[in-house]
Amino acid sequence: MIYLDTSATTAMYPEILDIIKKYAVEEYYNPSALYTKALNVAKEIKAAKQKILDILHGNGTIVFTGSGTESDNMAMFGSKKFKDCKVLVSEIEHSAIYQSAKKLQAQGVQVEFVKCDCNGIVCENDFKEKLTSNVAFVSIMHVSNETGGINDIEKLVSMTKAIAPKAIFHSDGVQAVGKMPINLNKLGVDLYTFSAHKFHGMKGVGGLYIKKGVNINPIIFGGGQENGLRSATENVCGIVSTAYALDKTYKLLDIEKNKKLIEYTAQNLTKIVPNCVINTNFDKSLSNILSISIKDTRGEVLVHMLEDKGIIIGTGSACSASKAHTRVPIALGLSKEYFDGMLRISIDNCTTFEEVEIFIKEFEECYKFLNNFTAK
Amino acid sequence: MIYLDTSATTAMYPEILDIIKKYAVEEYYNPSALYTKALNVAKEIKAAKQKILDILHGNGTIVFTGSGTESDNMAMFGSKKFKDCKVLVSEIEHSAIYQSAKKLQAQGVQVEFVKCDCNGIVCENDFKEKLTSNVAFVSIMHVSNETGGINDIEKLVSMTKAIAPKAIFHSDGVQAVGKMPINLNKLGVDLYTFSAHKFHGMKGVGGLYIKKGVNINPIIFGGGQENGLRSATENVCGIVSTAYALDKTYKLLDIEKNKKLIEYTAQNLTKIVPNCVINTNFDKSLSNILSISIKDTRGEVLVHMLEDKGIIIGTGSACSASKAHTRVPIALGLSKEYFDGMLRISIDNCTTFEEVEIFIKEFEECYKFLNNFTAK
Repeated sequence: MIYLDTSATTAMYPEILDIIKKYAVEEYYNPSALYTKALNVAKEIKAAKQKILDILHGNGTIVFTGSGTESDNMAMFGSKKFKDCKVLVSEIEHSAIYQSAKKLQAQGVQVEFVKCDCNGIVCENDFKEKLTSNVAFVSIMHVSNETGGINDIEKLVSMTKAIAPKAIFHSDGVQAVGKMPINLNKLGVDLYTFSAHKFHGMKGVGGLYIKKGVNINPIIFGGGQENGLRSATENVCGIVSTAYALDKTYKLLDIEKNKKLIEYTAQNLTKIVPNCVINTNFDKSLSNILSISIKDTRGEVLVHMLEDKGIIIGTGSACSASKAHTRVPIALGLSKEYFDGMLRISIDNCTTFEEVEIFIKEFEECYKFLNNFTAK
Repeated sequence: MIYLDTSATTAMYPEILDIIKKYAVEEYYNPSALYTKALNVAKEIKAAKQKILDILHGNGTIVFTGSGTESDNMAMFGSKKFKDCKVLVSEIEHSAIYQSAKKLQAQGVQVEFVKCDCNGIVCENDFKEKLTSNVAFVSIMHVSNETGGINDIEKLVSMTKAIAPKAIFHSDGVQAVGKMPINLNKLGVDLYTFSAHKFHGMKGVGGLYIKKGVNINPIIFGGGQENGLRSATENVCGIVSTAYALDKTYKLLDIEKNKKLIEYTAQNLTKIVPNCVINTNFDKSLSNILSISIKDTRGEVLVHMLEDKGIIIGTGSACSASKAHTRVPIALGLSKEYFDGMLRISIDNCTTFEEVEIFIKEFEECYKFLNNFTAK
């Protein structure tokens, strides 16, 4: 099986099974209990959070949640709003931000959607235009889950703080963490989301970084865990294994190799498919995602044909695959003939040159077969 | 180690490591993706839900969340409210309901707290008095996490539907599921919460049963997973393993044995401690919890002394152990001298008679030592 959909999810590192055994079968205590064995587990949670802060160069706290989506919702709904304030998000945010912004809008909050360019990168001019002193909350994703385009978060934060000093700046880093070096202090973000299963951790584990001094409210209420910010018995295995997975992923990260592989793939696909648009701009993108749109083609059919040959690729974002899904292609400026033919190839440290070679060869066969078949 | 705090959490069944290996390391695909391997994972999720519905005799759907707390919050905030409506919850609900009801109250919704008796069971008269036709939402826990007291949910649902036919009835079943047979159809509840780590499943996995025909709104927004009710990449291992753990737990459940052990423990502790109140009424309680309050005694000290001897018991609910915590003892009608001396002994299928014997012996030694030490 050649797996080229690492932006959708990744295989958990097998060693994490030992972590789960330790904290779920052996030291399974509820970290909120008062006995020493429970307090020791609570200490492990604290250590895991510090490790993550160290790796991502943050100065603040990590709140663990049940998903990247929950972290995004917590940022959106938990950050303070005031009368006549405005919320800014980009028009190609992940659904977790986009749909929660829509919800906020339905509740009467003024929300504006910042335009992006054809590579899925936020237009700084449009951002500047929409940025007014009454902005209370901004959410711009660090890396587009569709194109891999990297936003200049440091610059956008600095622009925001100059015009709306009290605004809370959140960035969804789900596709960035583990794929590129992150320096939260340098980015200057107030809030930052990550998701463990995108870097070989467990599914069902998200995190929200909260910069020191930034106050937000919980969206889930109860026993007061996570300093009152996210009640629920802590997912000990999830938390401890996230720190492990993050550390290992960064130790293995080879951006240059990934960059070579993904650009090589893009060059070859462009040769095979004359009527295609490469949505990824490799000068301003993550080294592991290639977004390609093929004219008058149903991407889904190619996905299934390739799966029969043992190769897995994605169609846009897995998170919204189940729905009619035209928001992102429209935002990228694609014309209708390209909507159904959007494919996402995403690699990571585990991907080899040989795998990419096989993919290109098989893709060519599938595409040609499909093209002959559908040719008028 | 003798573990008598099963109401706080339980050890995961070791075989679940194989389930995790299968769905996190091998078949790790994102169930929202379009390829067959991902669709197969989505099918496993569906099958797990059906298995849970079968075991709990429910007719409806299961939405998986990140915790029992999130399920409770989803019931509280997701159920529809209308102008001038009223919400009823009991005064000894778990914090997940109690604190979210407080939040709702702060938002302007009328909330009334129904009294309970000294065994932690809701007073039906007080419930009747507060039950008016404008009640939109009721949440009464199935089993008290503090005393083990079982509420007659079937009767309370029937009373509710007679007076307020459109009211949504939710019950927090976190302490009931896996500990007693559950028949959701017979109970008649609209919504019902459970939590996997209470019956040897994984931490970080909750569920909300939604009866067929009942509509609630999501509280977390995004990619539209779980039929739009709880967005986030599905926690495949968590979901599949919950069905496994539930099935196994019910197969092992021996209520008579548990009942004998817990009553034997209560009889012996009463002999050892003259100044104690047994909060659990074994005629109307779960067979696995004993709540005891000791006059002028710091329960925490006893917990630590017993831990030194290899025995783990709890002080009230682990979920709120970290906070000054007098709400429940007040609701139970205990006087102040008993507040600090509240202990919870909770057993399950794994607990043996020999373990209980050792506990009683060691408890006697600890109590006598402490009593001599603190005697004036």
